[in-house]
Amino acid sequence: MKIIVDAMGGDNAPQAPVMGAVEANREYGVGVILVGRGETILKVLEDNGIKELPAGVEIAHASEVVEMCDNPATAFREKKDSSLTVGLNLLKSGEGDAFVSAGSTGALLSGATLVVKRIRGIRRAALAPVVPTGNGGAVLIDCGANAECPPEYLLQFAYMGSYYAEHVLGRPEPRVGLLNIGVEPSKGTSLQTAVYPMLVEAGKAGRINFVGNVEAREAVEGAVDVIVCDGYSGNIFLKTMEGTGLYLVRELKGVFTKNLLTKLAAVLVSGGLKQMKKLLSSSEVGGTALVGISKPVIKAHGSSDAYAIKNAVRQAKQYVSSGIIESITENVDVMRLDPPLKAKEAAKETAPEQA
Amino acid sequence: MKIIVDAMGGDNAPQAPVMGAVEANREYGVGVILVGRGETILKVLEDNGIKELPAGVEIAHASEVVEMCDNPATAFREKKDSSLTVGLNLLKSGEGDAFVSAGSTGALLSGATLVVKRIRGIRRAALAPVVPTGNGGAVLIDCGANAECPPEYLLQFAYMGSYYAEHVLGRPEPRVGLLNIGVEPSKGTSLQTAVYPMLVEAGKAGRINFVGNVEAREAVEGAVDVIVCDGYSGNIFLKTMEGTGLYLVRELKGVFTKNLLTKLAAVLVSGGLKQMKKLLSSSEVGGTALVGISKPVIKAHGSSDAYAIKNAVRQAKQYVSSGIIESITENVDVMRLDPPLKAKEAAKETAPEQA
Repeated sequence: MKIIVDAMGGDNAPQAPVMGAVEANREYGVGVILVGRGETILKVLEDNGIKELPAGVEIAHASEVVEMCDNPATAFREKKDSSLTVGLNLLKSGEGDAFVSAGSTGALLSGATLVVKRIRGIRRAALAPVVPTGNGGAVLIDCGANAECPPEYLLQFAYMGSYYAEHVLGRPEPRVGLLNIGVEPSKGTSLQTAVYPMLVEAGKAGRINFVGNVEAREAVEGAVDVIVCDGYSGNIFLKTMEGTGLYLVRELKGVFTKNLLTKLAAVLVSGGLKQMKKLLSSSEVGGTALVGISKPVIKAHGSSDAYAIKNAVRQAKQYVSSGIIESITENVDVMRLDPPLKAKEAAKETAPEQA
Repeated sequence: MKIIVDAMGGDNAPQAPVMGAVEANREYGVGVILVGRGETILKVLEDNGIKELPAGVEIAHASEVVEMCDNPATAFREKKDSSLTVGLNLLKSGEGDAFVSAGSTGALLSGATLVVKRIRGIRRAALAPVVPTGNGGAVLIDCGANAECPPEYLLQFAYMGSYYAEHVLGRPEPRVGLLNIGVEPSKGTSLQTAVYPMLVEAGKAGRINFVGNVEAREAVEGAVDVIVCDGYSGNIFLKTMEGTGLYLVRELKGVFTKNLLTKLAAVLVSGGLKQMKKLLSSSEVGGTALVGISKPVIKAHGSSDAYAIKNAVRQAKQYVSSGIIESITENVDVMRLDPPLKAKEAAKETAPEQA
């Protein structure tokens, strides 16, 4: 297996992606293709005491870099020789099995959608991070790729999120919840009330394990394995979680640095606090999968260090082996409101009447 | 000033509201009217060693109680002699200056809207809690009264939230932010992109201090004084915050109860931890104002204890003295997309053409 890594993307590029990829190659035994300016990549390796390209590490030269100021919708096309576009083309042509980038989310999403393409029948790719919850994490789908969604998108997110939780996180019969402001079917906006019966039907048919509406508080506490929502709400959920975590950690720091005794207390619980911080850290998860794209694409956090990139490569490896893309592809007809076959049948039935 | 308190509403009624009101009377010198079953209220007082009704404490008898199983939209009408309906009517008739209830949010909202009525020109009342943020709290408006909102509602929420922050929280020129998934004006759903220019205009006219879009993370960290959003998103924001806080407090408890040394650490920082817990506690704030109603109505948390009710009464007192209702009433014309005067002028202008 070969994972393609964008060597130029992210706040800490090229150092973080190059060294993260090399470490992943060493630790997980996966081949990696570093995409970016050849001389820059070699320089990073040299600076880190690596004189010769390790076995299983390749370089694919790309002279340009997509910057945060580039238009995300068109960057991949305007900068054809960027690490992003070259990397996605390597993925498309099958020279690598997955693509990992810490660069612009928007540019990656547009590029992946238009170069690698979505799985046939999937309306929109979703950003699906695994967020830290009381039950060891839940798939949040979508968290920002699609701010506004018709019901069909959410129906598809529910299925794709369920496959992700099952195949990638290893959860049997993952509990799928619709993010809402109450548990009754009548709660929420017209979007949730439209999606609810669709998910009930999918649940009754045994295709997903729909457990109903889930309030944000219970979702954080670990009531479900998959949190289904539009990208706007998912982003609010994710960022509120991050903000609250940071806020409390800062307050906690204040508690511990008050005086000598509290500083002693800090020493006594330092191990536990480190564990707790790890729980909140995005570096541990690695990155966010672009679920619905026909090949594995992982968005690593913009601020990723080498450790986070290494974990994103591990996640990409899991994604490739998981069979999630095959599962989505095989079951795509039940995820559509107008499955091609049924649509044709319906057309036949109505045709005589129209004549 | 007299604050009307629903003696029968909330998980801990009648004990919590009765004793909370009595304590508020003692501590803040406000008159209170306890609404509910007279004999029950007297029994609570007696059980707490109060043989005679203290000066400034009155009882208004109401034989019925709105239960959580009652239909929130019609409960106030079906149970005409409930503490909710009697209390709201006392507020309407001017026998009290504000109403505090820990009962059903939906029933209170419907009752307040239909008995006490909204301020003329205000489209919808909003639930506007003060959420704990890095800058000592921000007004979150709306947090669940209106799941789905047209742009005009959010325009009004922005003004009302700004008046609340200024008059009740005492923040000069409160920073108003539109909750969004990015700072650019193009971000969000069609709701946010429609509201954004309206808020920019209100800002340019010097009516509010609109600081632009605010992401959830920055909102939690304290970037604004007022967080403007539809009720669905606001509820997701609030409940995610609550859930994350509870989750981290539980994890923290785990860290401190590991062994003897960590338990010692807990003792050393117990004061600071208590302060931190207080920060997160809804009891401190008291309750959530129903902003936009023509008289002060405060929803206390359903799980309120006497301390929380006492704080809700204090908040009601502040609300009455703040002048917020007067400010909204005076400025309501600029909060409307079709101010009555302009609408008439427009009708005049177009009339000849139509003829």
